[in-house]
Amino acid sequence: MINIAVMGYGTIGSGVVKVIDINGESIAKKVGEELNVKYVLDLRSFPGDPIEEKVVHDVDIILNDPDVKIVVETMGGVKPAYDFVKRALLAGKSVATSNKELVAKHGTELLEIAQEKNINFLFEASVGGGIPIIRPLNQCLTSDEIYEITGILNGTTNYILTKMAKEGAEFDDVLKQAQANGYAERNPAADIEGFDACRKIAILSSLAYGSMVDFEDIHTEGITNISAVDFKYAAKLGRSIKLFGTSKKKDGKYFALVAPVMINENHALFAVNDVFNGILVKGNVVDQVMFYGRGAGSLPTASAVVADVIEAAKNLNNNMMKPWKAEKLALSDISEDTKKFFVRISGVAEDKKAEVEAAFGDAEYITIDGLEEFAIITPVMSEAEYKAAAAKVDGIINMIRIEE
Amino acid sequence: MINIAVMGYGTIGSGVVKVIDINGESIAKKVGEELNVKYVLDLRSFPGDPIEEKVVHDVDIILNDPDVKIVVETMGGVKPAYDFVKRALLAGKSVATSNKELVAKHGTELLEIAQEKNINFLFEASVGGGIPIIRPLNQCLTSDEIYEITGILNGTTNYILTKMAKEGAEFDDVLKQAQANGYAERNPAADIEGFDACRKIAILSSLAYGSMVDFEDIHTEGITNISAVDFKYAAKLGRSIKLFGTSKKKDGKYFALVAPVMINENHALFAVNDVFNGILVKGNVVDQVMFYGRGAGSLPTASAVVADVIEAAKNLNNNMMKPWKAEKLALSDISEDTKKFFVRISGVAEDKKAEVEAAFGDAEYITIDGLEEFAIITPVMSEAEYKAAAAKVDGIINMIRIEE
Repeated sequence: MINIAVMGYGTIGSGVVKVIDINGESIAKKVGEELNVKYVLDLRSFPGDPIEEKVVHDVDIILNDPDVKIVVETMGGVKPAYDFVKRALLAGKSVATSNKELVAKHGTELLEIAQEKNINFLFEASVGGGIPIIRPLNQCLTSDEIYEITGILNGTTNYILTKMAKEGAEFDDVLKQAQANGYAERNPAADIEGFDACRKIAILSSLAYGSMVDFEDIHTEGITNISAVDFKYAAKLGRSIKLFGTSKKKDGKYFALVAPVMINENHALFAVNDVFNGILVKGNVVDQVMFYGRGAGSLPTASAVVADVIEAAKNLNNNMMKPWKAEKLALSDISEDTKKFFVRISGVAEDKKAEVEAAFGDAEYITIDGLEEFAIITPVMSEAEYKAAAAKVDGIINMIRIEE
Repeated sequence: MINIAVMGYGTIGSGVVKVIDINGESIAKKVGEELNVKYVLDLRSFPGDPIEEKVVHDVDIILNDPDVKIVVETMGGVKPAYDFVKRALLAGKSVATSNKELVAKHGTELLEIAQEKNINFLFEASVGGGIPIIRPLNQCLTSDEIYEITGILNGTTNYILTKMAKEGAEFDDVLKQAQANGYAERNPAADIEGFDACRKIAILSSLAYGSMVDFEDIHTEGITNISAVDFKYAAKLGRSIKLFGTSKKKDGKYFALVAPVMINENHALFAVNDVFNGILVKGNVVDQVMFYGRGAGSLPTASAVVADVIEAAKNLNNNMMKPWKAEKLALSDISEDTKKFFVRISGVAEDKKAEVEAAFGDAEYITIDGLEEFAIITPVMSEAEYKAAAAKVDGIINMIRIEE
């Protein structure tokens, strides 16, 4: 029997207990021993819950119990999760976490401690919920030089954008609906401003490129500026609008960006809709692979946490994930990166063509009947060139980057 | 330095040498040592090729060399691959193979030998080319009870079906095109008759359900009966036609099938086109995850082989894949399985409605202008009920199963 402790009995933590309960028999076969949840750490008590007797409020009970070999951290946030996890690792306990804030901020150090102790710090559930992506990056796509990783990494924003596309609704209305039915938090900033996707692409990029990518270095834009009119143009163009977290290596430089983008139906992430996540990885020999599934939700996310617990249990004294380099990866300023831009401009296309051409050169024009505006798709240019050109044109309403 | 030998210098074997050459430096960092291709086994010589000096024609040179720790098998076929691989494992050398015939036929025994010797028999490249699917099933989706695994597993047939859908062309013409540009073999039976997909779904099912699934037990139909007219109906229905290899656990029974199916745009595999493969896995806690990428090709497939070599090199004396049970999984006859069926019938719908209704009950009717036939979608029924009903209706032209 292998004893584990679950820190944080919220959506994911309770899912972890449930998964071990539902599939305990087949899990025991895979591990070779039964998994036993010995403690649940939470500030609350849970009278009537099957784990009632296991609840403790003092983390030291867990940290000081040599019987506990693996700790699950599903509290979220950096405080006190970082302190608890670090002490657990220093006490020789492997840790499985779903906490992207923790991994993005302190992953480097925690991986190093796990390596020194020859135990494991695993975080499959921190990105993409139930989708296997961390272990595939660490153990499958190892013969490749990865040069791009792009994901639809946040289910809430993808749900909102999908609804807007299907129903022609405005952002604010869909957000309210999403909050009402539990797909968005009461304070939705972390999702809609792109902060959540930012932490996730930082984690994936650190793994893919082997050096710590600091999420604070990543240019991040949310979806709050996307409107029903943007989707009218997208529909006319046969495109969809998605919130991407993306990083790439191009001509020896690294770029990372979180922003809404327009993609066409040939993009591998085009059909990733609703609350689903999708992660596209490009390598110099594998070409491209894509991983798709539920990026959130109690049981899907818990399934990834428990899979980590199983790996940790099978490798109690065998460190499996080498830390990425602590030295920060130098990200180039996105102003140097080049792409096409979709730009909405108020007024009549014919009247403004000279002005637009002088600024952007040969653009593709899109008009929609009944609107007192038009849109263009620019030639490929750098973000800096775009900014300079946009400053020369009056009445720019919105800009969305185009990803091919 | 870890010495490896490559058996078979064809498309994939030469890709393996190339991947180690291109990415040798980053691979060495991951392994902790350099990988060195010491021998290449082939009947041919390769004058002028960089590996010219490494070519041997006698497998015993490899098997008797204690310096060779890992053998790559990329010969294909069962003879002599089975004999060579078995002897390599018995000699204590780990093996990485891309050979689905070998794994489908002898995987159980070879996994058992690897376990006894505490080495590794790995076959990520045998299914889905460069797509990580074997290791995710073995190490990531471990907290789930998997109840369905469905794949577009054969790039040649997917390329043909995609072309037929886009161009309205007939099967024979597209096959000839595909042969001309190298996407189909001169003898295409293994692909177009579904035999290749059959072996692949057998391997995935053995892993997913933990007992050996015999590919010879799987009801297998190819795509040779699919015509341009079928795609006209599919287009009208907003559906696509794909060759699925699929297995599932339903009410305690296991079913497996290789056959063309109609799917709609909500299916996770709907957008898997051209030579790409996609594999959908459903589990009782993760819900569904999908893996997508290049299912064939020299470098993508070699990337999976080399990733296996890297894992084997990092785990020279640590067996990572437990064998599935040697006892055969009892597959139920597909006649017991239920679904809807798309059925084309010659004649005029109005004239035949009474006959069709008497046989199939309330069906959905589809007509296309200018055709002297019509089609129906039946209610959900078992394959046995479908057969009985179909026997009562004159002029059935073709049937395609519908997967939701």
